[in-house]
Amino acid sequence: MTRYQHLACLLSDRIEQGLYRSGERLPSVRTLSLEHGVSISTVQQAYHLLEEKLLIVPQPRSGYFVATRKATPPVPALTRPVQRPVEITQWDAVLELLSSRTGGDTLQLGSGMPDLSQPTLKPLWKIMARQAQKQDIATLNYDSLLGVTALREEVARLAIDSGCQLTAEDIVITTGCHEALSASVRAVCEPGDIIAVESPAFHGTMQTLRGFGIRAIEIPTDSVTGISLEALELAFEQWPIKAVVVVPNCNNPLGFIMPEARKRALLTLTQRFDAAIIEDDVYGELAWEYPRPITLKSLDMDGRVLLCSSFSKTLAPGLRVGWVAPGRYRDRVLHMKYIGTGSTATQPQHAVAEFIRQGHYLPHLRRMRQVYQRNYETFSCWVRHYFPCGICVSRPQGSFLMWVELPEAFDAVRMNAELRALNIQVAVGSLFSASGKYRNCLRLNYGLPMNAQTERAVAQLGAAIERAMHAASTDAPASSVTD
Amino acid sequence: MTRYQHLACLLSDRIEQGLYRSGERLPSVRTLSLEHGVSISTVQQAYHLLEEKLLIVPQPRSGYFVATRKATPPVPALTRPVQRPVEITQWDAVLELLSSRTGGDTLQLGSGMPDLSQPTLKPLWKIMARQAQKQDIATLNYDSLLGVTALREEVARLAIDSGCQLTAEDIVITTGCHEALSASVRAVCEPGDIIAVESPAFHGTMQTLRGFGIRAIEIPTDSVTGISLEALELAFEQWPIKAVVVVPNCNNPLGFIMPEARKRALLTLTQRFDAAIIEDDVYGELAWEYPRPITLKSLDMDGRVLLCSSFSKTLAPGLRVGWVAPGRYRDRVLHMKYIGTGSTATQPQHAVAEFIRQGHYLPHLRRMRQVYQRNYETFSCWVRHYFPCGICVSRPQGSFLMWVELPEAFDAVRMNAELRALNIQVAVGSLFSASGKYRNCLRLNYGLPMNAQTERAVAQLGAAIERAMHAASTDAPASSVTD
Repeated sequence: MTRYQHLACLLSDRIEQGLYRSGERLPSVRTLSLEHGVSISTVQQAYHLLEEKLLIVPQPRSGYFVATRKATPPVPALTRPVQRPVEITQWDAVLELLSSRTGGDTLQLGSGMPDLSQPTLKPLWKIMARQAQKQDIATLNYDSLLGVTALREEVARLAIDSGCQLTAEDIVITTGCHEALSASVRAVCEPGDIIAVESPAFHGTMQTLRGFGIRAIEIPTDSVTGISLEALELAFEQWPIKAVVVVPNCNNPLGFIMPEARKRALLTLTQRFDAAIIEDDVYGELAWEYPRPITLKSLDMDGRVLLCSSFSKTLAPGLRVGWVAPGRYRDRVLHMKYIGTGSTATQPQHAVAEFIRQGHYLPHLRRMRQVYQRNYETFSCWVRHYFPCGICVSRPQGSFLMWVELPEAFDAVRMNAELRALNIQVAVGSLFSASGKYRNCLRLNYGLPMNAQTERAVAQLGAAIERAMHAASTDAPASSVTD
Repeated sequence: MTRYQHLACLLSDRIEQGLYRSGERLPSVRTLSLEHGVSISTVQQAYHLLEEKLLIVPQPRSGYFVATRKATPPVPALTRPVQRPVEITQWDAVLELLSSRTGGDTLQLGSGMPDLSQPTLKPLWKIMARQAQKQDIATLNYDSLLGVTALREEVARLAIDSGCQLTAEDIVITTGCHEALSASVRAVCEPGDIIAVESPAFHGTMQTLRGFGIRAIEIPTDSVTGISLEALELAFEQWPIKAVVVVPNCNNPLGFIMPEARKRALLTLTQRFDAAIIEDDVYGELAWEYPRPITLKSLDMDGRVLLCSSFSKTLAPGLRVGWVAPGRYRDRVLHMKYIGTGSTATQPQHAVAEFIRQGHYLPHLRRMRQVYQRNYETFSCWVRHYFPCGICVSRPQGSFLMWVELPEAFDAVRMNAELRALNIQVAVGSLFSASGKYRNCLRLNYGLPMNAQTERAVAQLGAAIERAMHAASTDAPASSVTD
């Protein structure tokens, strides 16, 4: 942290603690310079940073004042989905989101895309260029069904940080985490079976269940502590649930990290009802806490956890390099991988293995965690500033996704049409429900560069929400809630 | 064709036509040189080539003699699989074949691996290196669900050669042909449905059916004209068949190209019974005839054909770049792709698109067709020479796969264990049947370099077959045929 960042941090703490009150004039640049023994320009930089974060406002010829702030919005309450297994819908809406994913000028606030512009990613390009120059035929040939050995060894080593004792033989490389999840679901379930999911839950997983004729039972989920174990237990007692799919670390979309005690309790519960756990850890490496949170897999003694992950969020999604540690379901997962894609693209696997082997991965992760955490601070300031009152906002503990809950009558699907004209894309909450719930919610991505364009988009989004909320309060709210 | 190749060809024709008889002495080098107006060394090279092909044998100080040859083995007769839908087995055997696919010193006579050593492939490496050097972020990011537009445009253009009028919008890029087939099967069928397949049929397709709970009805197939339309019609009348999976061009494993009239009749038949056709054209570009044979898709007027293909056999399998033209099933196929892998690795798609755009693809194809055809001539000479009598051998019309049928009592599965000790891998015929038929058959790959090591392996394989045939004729044949 540089001096000016340190100073900004200190001042921001004082504002947060109420030492400087809303609307109060801040000490002059000269006073602070003397008080902290730093240069005038350092103080100016610190003030500039706080201004960017909308914590303070300059007034010409009078200095800086603490911004008149709205209160920090509360986090969303425990969700209340339908309490029975349902057929999954919403494919059209997911397709629409995907179609806008690569649209030229559209600001992608709704995608799960990581920031690919950081310098710590550069060695990956070099490695890929070197590999192509070497013309090693093995990188163009079929890979083994398990995946490139060197990569599996590195993945096993990395898994130690999440508390796992794995060997290369325990790992199956997949075409992204998507294939890991897809193969896992098919490995543990037959069509017609029931799987319990968090609510809200990642739309990709949900569509996978739909595609294989599996019904989902959505379990109430808290935006701080995760899936409700009490509700899950009731569901287990009532329905023959084959497996639970969870994202316990840096949850998508809610951002929580499940407390360790609850992770243990979840595992015990699935043991009692002999269900499998499909654990999606794709954002786990991007937790802000250090050391990173443990996985359910690390607690698993009888191989019932299928740990799914990838390098899509930590390195780059276009590589399509993911993996699964399928525990006791290894043979079934291998079969499902074989019939899905045969094998995974070989060259990207070698490139990732080499990137890790050369020691570039951990520094890159460290940087990305910092980048996203700083982005979060800025982004949440903007949201507080530009969004209307009466909303709830998640407090992510890692990664780059934020969940915004608007008043019940709000219709985000309708608003989305308006946003398209502004070249802004958001993920509508209903994608994250089997039954089209959460039409009043949005998932936003703050992995983008926090620049003037992004700020303008957040401002436009805030204005659109305000208009839509106004319209919703005058309209009849009939069509906005589906259960 | 060089002069010596031309001369060799001419001499080989004369031997074939019986102008030079078995055991007869050939004209001296000097005579031929005068007769054809070519140099002494040209004649020597031509004789050397014929010697390599085992058509002639040198005798010290006496010149060259026509080799004492066995008769060309007949092609396999129409197959006779079980005439009812069956659950598919054989996964363990497929897994075993796959596990040996990347084994260090093992000679891969059983894999569907193309030759990656040809100089016409070199520009692909250069393109990949250049792309990595350019550090274009788009190549690391998610691709659209359809796939990279530039690649889809090139694929649509290439499809003209097979008679298809397609646009980029008709094409969905997949992770190899494997995903194209897998998504197609799931797009047209529900678990419990019945699909008709050729018999023998590619094991990957068969395992896909198994994995999704689909039953296969194996249709008798002729090694020259393809699937029996008469048997297929009977099956249609008897069972509610949802789709037919066929490899009409350079069939895997039999090597035939379905005559055009039979392609038309197959399409008419599926129209009558309103079934879909999943057409696997992955070897179609490697047909020896020019122009290449048409696809069923090119005859399809109502969108019932899902054309699946890839660059795995023509360029390189490790790229995992395939595609499907799904006709009327486009939306379902997109959904199935989304839930299987989300998207395909981006960089290889860009590399292939650029390789085609720069004009390297068609010259590469031309070369590969020549290489495989020449390999076939040599390889079939070796098979004739080293394998015992009483076998049937397919006459492939393209690609690099050969089907060998041994006497009914022969057990290739048992022989395979013996081959492992010799570091030779073959594909056992039973992989190509839903019900474990064809234990007396082998599929061999002549895409390998035709060098001394390969010849030795063919010789060892021939000896092993001879031993096993001998053992089979003395043993009881009880366990060798399963229907």
